[in-house]
Amino acid sequence: MTDSIDLLGISNAIVDILAHVDEEFLASIGVPRGSMTLIDEQRSRDIYERMGPATEMSGGSVANTIANFASLGGRAAYIGRVKADQLGEIFVHDMRALGVDVRLAPSQGGAPTARSLILITPDGQRTMQTYLGACTELAAADVTERTVGKPGILLLEGYVWDLPEGPELIAKAIRIARQGPSRIALSLSDSFCVERHRQEFRDAVDESVDIVFADDDEIMALLETDDFDEVLRAVPALGNLFVMTRSEKGSVVVNGDQTIVQQALRVGKVVDTTGAGDAYTAGFLYGLAGERPLAECARLGTYCATNIIQRVGARIEKDAITSYDEAS
Amino acid sequence: MTDSIDLLGISNAIVDILAHVDEEFLASIGVPRGSMTLIDEQRSRDIYERMGPATEMSGGSVANTIANFASLGGRAAYIGRVKADQLGEIFVHDMRALGVDVRLAPSQGGAPTARSLILITPDGQRTMQTYLGACTELAAADVTERTVGKPGILLLEGYVWDLPEGPELIAKAIRIARQGPSRIALSLSDSFCVERHRQEFRDAVDESVDIVFADDDEIMALLETDDFDEVLRAVPALGNLFVMTRSEKGSVVVNGDQTIVQQALRVGKVVDTTGAGDAYTAGFLYGLAGERPLAECARLGTYCATNIIQRVGARIEKDAITSYDEAS
Repeated sequence: MTDSIDLLGISNAIVDILAHVDEEFLASIGVPRGSMTLIDEQRSRDIYERMGPATEMSGGSVANTIANFASLGGRAAYIGRVKADQLGEIFVHDMRALGVDVRLAPSQGGAPTARSLILITPDGQRTMQTYLGACTELAAADVTERTVGKPGILLLEGYVWDLPEGPELIAKAIRIARQGPSRIALSLSDSFCVERHRQEFRDAVDESVDIVFADDDEIMALLETDDFDEVLRAVPALGNLFVMTRSEKGSVVVNGDQTIVQQALRVGKVVDTTGAGDAYTAGFLYGLAGERPLAECARLGTYCATNIIQRVGARIEKDAITSYDEAS
Repeated sequence: MTDSIDLLGISNAIVDILAHVDEEFLASIGVPRGSMTLIDEQRSRDIYERMGPATEMSGGSVANTIANFASLGGRAAYIGRVKADQLGEIFVHDMRALGVDVRLAPSQGGAPTARSLILITPDGQRTMQTYLGACTELAAADVTERTVGKPGILLLEGYVWDLPEGPELIAKAIRIARQGPSRIALSLSDSFCVERHRQEFRDAVDESVDIVFADDDEIMALLETDDFDEVLRAVPALGNLFVMTRSEKGSVVVNGDQTIVQQALRVGKVVDTTGAGDAYTAGFLYGLAGERPLAECARLGTYCATNIIQRVGARIEKDAITSYDEAS
């Protein structure tokens, strides 16, 4: 079986519910700013009831990356679980509309489609309260030779390890993808997620993951240090390709004995940082799939992240790559 | 019974599904740019399938006005029909979150919550394809002394005349509101709607409506002329308060023998004209409810419309009035 897909993502399929809030609101619901917390349906309802008017759009970390990768012109496929409800329909529509090959049909029963309440503070930072709903029903049985195929790159997200069958379905997906020429990429998702699954992530990085995407906090959590310089000393010996995003400090790509530091682009006003890392990953992988040099991949990632943070929402606009190529 | 509500709206309760499209897309689905077309569920699904990724937010013409009026700090209530599905929940949440007193509970059965596919062309103009769904089930029985009360102003939209029980429920609402000191306002909705119901609208303007909101096309359709100067000659004799919005030509308020012309404000870039008229109406009515002079009401309306067209979406941001008062 051949597979013309450049990138396959397996992740939580989530609809974002975005609203602007002030710092007092975060305090009143008792969540630390900038965090991602998993919550149950009742708490999701409670917080939603207290939130201001919102905007809904498809989200999910690796799902955003897949959507952005397709927007850039890449051939992408996606495995994630939604229910056949209105939010599920929105999620699938938004993926398909970008040309993403959505490989699971929505469930007829079970929990509703996942939603993440994204609370945006005036500085543009996001705090996420996520009810996983249907995502928790993603099963090892959903990951088959037919649904995985032989993508150029298989991209996983750390959050999947939180699911009941997460570790099992990830192992199975890697095993299937490995039958082809796939490279395995892992996005560490968030530092609390790394805390929850550190040993499993380390094993995966040792044994099967080729490319690691992480921000400062995540990579430091993985390596159990609070010193980024120590990260820089430690990762070359691990042998994986490390892509580390550092907000206004830019990004660092470590490929064995080679380190590339990419500065952030200046922006006027940061409107919403939601999805900046996901957009970076999309740009980087789009470059990688096109066999561009790593330095160019880092520049592409930066370009996409910069595009995202200047407006509300986590997905880049179509034709962003055209603007990039014209600007270069 | 006393009622502390300044403004009660009765209208179609709709969730907007917004996407950017090019002119070719409009041609391919065969709809004239700038129009609002009522479509059935199947056609709604067909067009949605062909549309690009979208963003969802609560909408509906008079519903936007009510939401904006509440954002400005006014006491508002709302009568409209949604189903108890996910889109219905979003609609009701977004109203309640602004403090609007939502007077009907979502239906447990029947047609799904209405959605309007809003196709935004690069010039910021909107073309709307609306599936009315649950709205068509709004009934005369929903309009009672309890749900209508005695609002300062009762705002109706022309689109309600399209509903099976529309004319009946409007007559009933006016009759109930008239038991108090209510002024009756009518937004003409769109020129095709005026064509569909011209005689009924004229009768309403003759007999029971105090304030008419219309754009150029709508007022010319009502008066069966293609000359705005003729409108200006005709309306003073009708005795109603006419508030006419004219896009970049500003707005004209005619109150018997007094005519106020308000220039439009200059804007850098028009992003999306969705809801400009609705926002104007909210600002105007907010001024009127606060007994501000008509010239000041026109300036408030203009301020709100200007706020709306500079970003995607049909509802103004909270605290817009604070910015207005600071700028004045």
